[in-house]
Amino acid sequence: MKLGMLGLGKMGYNLTLNLLDHGHEVVAHDISTEQVKEISSNGAIPAYTTNELIQQLDTPRIIWIMVPAGEVTENIVKELGTSLQPGDIVIDGGNSNYKDSIQRGDFLKEKGIHFFDVGTSGGIDGARNGACTMIGGDEKIFKTIEPLFRDVSVDKGYHYTGSLGSGHFLKMIHNGIEYGMMQAIGEGFDILSKSPFDYDYEGVARVWNNGSVIRSWLMELIENAFSKDPNLEAIKGVMHSSGEGKWTVEAALELQTAAPVITLSQLMRYRSLEEDTFSGKVVAALRNEFGGHAVEKNE
Amino acid sequence: MKLGMLGLGKMGYNLTLNLLDHGHEVVAHDISTEQVKEISSNGAIPAYTTNELIQQLDTPRIIWIMVPAGEVTENIVKELGTSLQPGDIVIDGGNSNYKDSIQRGDFLKEKGIHFFDVGTSGGIDGARNGACTMIGGDEKIFKTIEPLFRDVSVDKGYHYTGSLGSGHFLKMIHNGIEYGMMQAIGEGFDILSKSPFDYDYEGVARVWNNGSVIRSWLMELIENAFSKDPNLEAIKGVMHSSGEGKWTVEAALELQTAAPVITLSQLMRYRSLEEDTFSGKVVAALRNEFGGHAVEKNE
Repeated sequence: MKLGMLGLGKMGYNLTLNLLDHGHEVVAHDISTEQVKEISSNGAIPAYTTNELIQQLDTPRIIWIMVPAGEVTENIVKELGTSLQPGDIVIDGGNSNYKDSIQRGDFLKEKGIHFFDVGTSGGIDGARNGACTMIGGDEKIFKTIEPLFRDVSVDKGYHYTGSLGSGHFLKMIHNGIEYGMMQAIGEGFDILSKSPFDYDYEGVARVWNNGSVIRSWLMELIENAFSKDPNLEAIKGVMHSSGEGKWTVEAALELQTAAPVITLSQLMRYRSLEEDTFSGKVVAALRNEFGGHAVEKNE
Repeated sequence: MKLGMLGLGKMGYNLTLNLLDHGHEVVAHDISTEQVKEISSNGAIPAYTTNELIQQLDTPRIIWIMVPAGEVTENIVKELGTSLQPGDIVIDGGNSNYKDSIQRGDFLKEKGIHFFDVGTSGGIDGARNGACTMIGGDEKIFKTIEPLFRDVSVDKGYHYTGSLGSGHFLKMIHNGIEYGMMQAIGEGFDILSKSPFDYDYEGVARVWNNGSVIRSWLMELIENAFSKDPNLEAIKGVMHSSGEGKWTVEAALELQTAAPVITLSQLMRYRSLEEDTFSGKVVAALRNEFGGHAVEKNE
């Protein structure tokens, strides 16, 4: 099939290579001229503006957006809403909030443009060699673009999830689960590190990856990390987050669902960002006030 | 090698078959005469008492215990302590508490008997076709019995973990991580079930198992469960636990390690065992007392 790719960051660039491998024709644009040149040397059709990309596609056009969630995605969808024609198809493969995706889908629908919210997992390697995609939007139209998802995903690695928003909602929950799994793994190794035993963490991760109940891709990734740095001495335990975990917690609150472990995983990420905490000061002050317990003073 | 297997429950029985497959000679005993007869028809040498098992082994004897943790294991170790000879080797492959294992190892060491605490993961299928084993105890003696672990485990699925107790400690932490991962997965599907979307959970688990960051054996198991019962309607959400998660929390407390997600996973299991809670009554009563908020009355 012929399609346009908007955004040639790590994910978009590798997805484009993946699509080209599968014989698709990709017109590719990015704000970085360098990236456009680079991808065109790999077989993509270069487009140095969004309009140039639109001009080079036949109707009904298929445009895959792979840009940062939030304002950047919003602006592109707005722009496409004015430049595309009824029957055209827009795919958002980024990590957008599902509520935004529902709004964007509704906005484009008024103009007769189809919108799909696609959660993409598997990281950069997945984008390049076989991703995991969760696709929300109109089922009938989905059938017409299904080959794209079959081709960029690993075997059984794409799933039509239902109505508008369901793809990004599912990807959001995927990330919430990921946060919980990662925090549990982190805590387990933390207890090992404080235990009276002298564990070889790489060996531990390796044995856990072979035959145990907790074998998983995440455990493989940490085995790999330990193989390069046995005690992770080069890394600080600062855990950033990119939004989906927080949204999962917000969804749990909105839907009144008890999801304490996913919630706490998100909160522990916030804790990790602070060297000291105000809550700690308050508790230390209270212990001092009622019991005369010593406090540690700032120099 | 020739060894004795004490305990022919689901794990011991399948481990014995696994050992036999690999050409080992296994003298097998269980309190159930039926189980002994059954395993002997599969190639094991029957022993209808512990003494009969001991008599049929050459010194130095190797005896693998695969019985319930706690009193049963304790009694058997005590018995072996009096009936075995210096140089003999006892392997506890059950889910014993690592502190008990250290005591048992010390008790047997006084008699010149070697003890190994072996955490075994991978479930019944693992015991039969390739387990994951974590082995604590004397490293030099370990080398003499290493072939047994290599044979019953999957490739790269056994690991010498260090001094006495380290095998069961590691298995305990494995289970703590497992609790956290399972709770995160459970919470994720719970939010999906309350969402405005109509997800096919089997399809969700399948796509997550193919190319996503959270692909894992646990996700494969839940895919399998959903394939048999799409909404798990036949199952109550009652989550029992068998000790290792609780011990992990106790270890975290003892070692003063912040492990909130593993801890909460254990506590949520306790919550699931109660239809109603006293904490809920207390909070409802307090809301009523200070704000006149309605309470739900017992009939």
